[in-house]
Amino acid sequence: MLKNDLYLRALAGQPVQRPPVWMMRQAGRYLPSYLKLQEKYDFFTRCETPELVAEITCLPIDEIGPDAAILFSDILVVPRALGWHIEMKPGIGPVLDYPIESAEQAMAVRPVDVRKALNYVMEGIRVTNERLDRKVPLIGFSGAPWTLLCYMIEGRGSKDFAKAKAFCFTHPDAAAYLLSLLTDAIIEYLNAQIEAGVHAVQVFDSWAGLLGPDDFDIFVMPYLKRITEEVQGAPLILFAKGSWYALKQLSGQTRATALSVDWAVSPEFARQAVRHEITLQGNYDPSRLLSPVPVIEKQVKRMIDRFGKDRYIVNLGHGILPNIPVNHAKAFVNAVKTYGQ
Amino acid sequence: MLKNDLYLRALAGQPVQRPPVWMMRQAGRYLPSYLKLQEKYDFFTRCETPELVAEITCLPIDEIGPDAAILFSDILVVPRALGWHIEMKPGIGPVLDYPIESAEQAMAVRPVDVRKALNYVMEGIRVTNERLDRKVPLIGFSGAPWTLLCYMIEGRGSKDFAKAKAFCFTHPDAAAYLLSLLTDAIIEYLNAQIEAGVHAVQVFDSWAGLLGPDDFDIFVMPYLKRITEEVQGAPLILFAKGSWYALKQLSGQTRATALSVDWAVSPEFARQAVRHEITLQGNYDPSRLLSPVPVIEKQVKRMIDRFGKDRYIVNLGHGILPNIPVNHAKAFVNAVKTYGQ
Repeated sequence: MLKNDLYLRALAGQPVQRPPVWMMRQAGRYLPSYLKLQEKYDFFTRCETPELVAEITCLPIDEIGPDAAILFSDILVVPRALGWHIEMKPGIGPVLDYPIESAEQAMAVRPVDVRKALNYVMEGIRVTNERLDRKVPLIGFSGAPWTLLCYMIEGRGSKDFAKAKAFCFTHPDAAAYLLSLLTDAIIEYLNAQIEAGVHAVQVFDSWAGLLGPDDFDIFVMPYLKRITEEVQGAPLILFAKGSWYALKQLSGQTRATALSVDWAVSPEFARQAVRHEITLQGNYDPSRLLSPVPVIEKQVKRMIDRFGKDRYIVNLGHGILPNIPVNHAKAFVNAVKTYGQ
Repeated sequence: MLKNDLYLRALAGQPVQRPPVWMMRQAGRYLPSYLKLQEKYDFFTRCETPELVAEITCLPIDEIGPDAAILFSDILVVPRALGWHIEMKPGIGPVLDYPIESAEQAMAVRPVDVRKALNYVMEGIRVTNERLDRKVPLIGFSGAPWTLLCYMIEGRGSKDFAKAKAFCFTHPDAAAYLLSLLTDAIIEYLNAQIEAGVHAVQVFDSWAGLLGPDDFDIFVMPYLKRITEEVQGAPLILFAKGSWYALKQLSGQTRATALSVDWAVSPEFARQAVRHEITLQGNYDPSRLLSPVPVIEKQVKRMIDRFGKDRYIVNLGHGILPNIPVNHAKAFVNAVKTYGQ
């Protein structure tokens, strides 16, 4: 049905001529066309207006040419649905009012009807799919429970989320309550996205790597496992950034279709750690997109050689940076498209 | 000669009754006695006044009781010696004026007489050793070339040091020049510290983990290797934070006496990666010091069981945090001292 289903074939483990490619945050601030919309509409207006979601999601498809579109949205829409007010402050990033400071506050968080509160996302999916006209698959996503908890306690981005971690270590029961509530919300949210028409979903655990392996087992693993078991009807990709030590476990003990890895993980380490029938995604260092174009081209080809062309999705190891020249992003995508020619 | 030489015996690989313990940044902001001195003297005055260096270095020895003292100083004294003005801004951390922005600026950096420019550190070592009265060994240290370059280009701390990385990827030759110049300065500096009386030296590569394995080989490994070869007369401990993927290489291809590891690395992974005759140091998550005291005690004993009591130095996986209660830091140290009893 899709004109280009390379991404889905790689997820299904079917042999391909070349791997598919997309870039995390590909509809972001490095695109001049995005910056124009950024001037006109504030961040959450862009996320909540289905026509803008569709327009922004499609920008890189037309301008850069990746093999998949990822819905323009933000992981913090879930805490917003749970009642937090969030402001995007220039130079700081997201700032939540009234971050959670006590066990009592955490235990007072109540579930909401996610499908209703986030209906604008499902509407955005429908409008985006119309506009995409089956050109490429559409990826939905959510933040993972641990990463959302980090923001809800820390109140903003942080180098080490020390406040959030301190909360969990001093109030493990309240943390478990909150993680469990978030897990329920995320499962409901991702299932609704799939019903609305996304072809795959990715779960971003951007701050998993701040935990050591023992704490990963407590605060991350059980929740990710449950998400992979209860989200139904589409392939699911887990990205536990920084948690190289958990690759084997995420591969063997969850039902994830694919694991996304960051650039600290060599292709050889990743392949050796995971079961054969899992797809890997990653892992070009986004800063490396500032290298001269011939260097990018050479490194991309070598990366594919090392991961292998099958069961592999070319991507970055984290979101693309705002200062990447558009022609470098194009060179990255084109190097994949000409692989093997 | 030393009353307590447990730390040096662990470095030498001699069997011990229990492992030694100290904490990175143990003379820091969690100590009320330190905060009083912080009110009276600005940061670099504290670093540059030998009597204050001695006083601050000894605070945790008297109040917490670790098996080694680490000289109170800062990794940024080297860029300062090279001519940068650095200010410690509250809530931000170190800010360098005129960070390096072009290849020309990098190539214009000239070596200085480090022994002369940093003579105050050597003086601090002599006064500290007098005051320590051979109670415990004194550890000297330096930032590693890569980590110092990060600050000299980024101009301040950063989550991803994207500007510094971008510089290296666009100007690899200028980066190599600067890393090589820093390596020379660091070797001279550490040798001077050893001559002045420190019993061991530690090299902090706090931002090594921002690089993937291939870039680690270009921007980190050759310089760390040369430092371990040219620093003479005392054991040398390397701490390449976040570079779990390079443990085997750092163990096999450098002359480091010990490797320090962060909490993402399990004891089993670390021991398996390194050669038998190397000592390991680490790796308790500093945030974990906010756990209840009985949890800390249990986790410390288990950590020692897993690393093994020999060829092991108990430490944190990064510097202690300002909000750690003093009695929790004491509980950490005491749990090591009562190990096996």
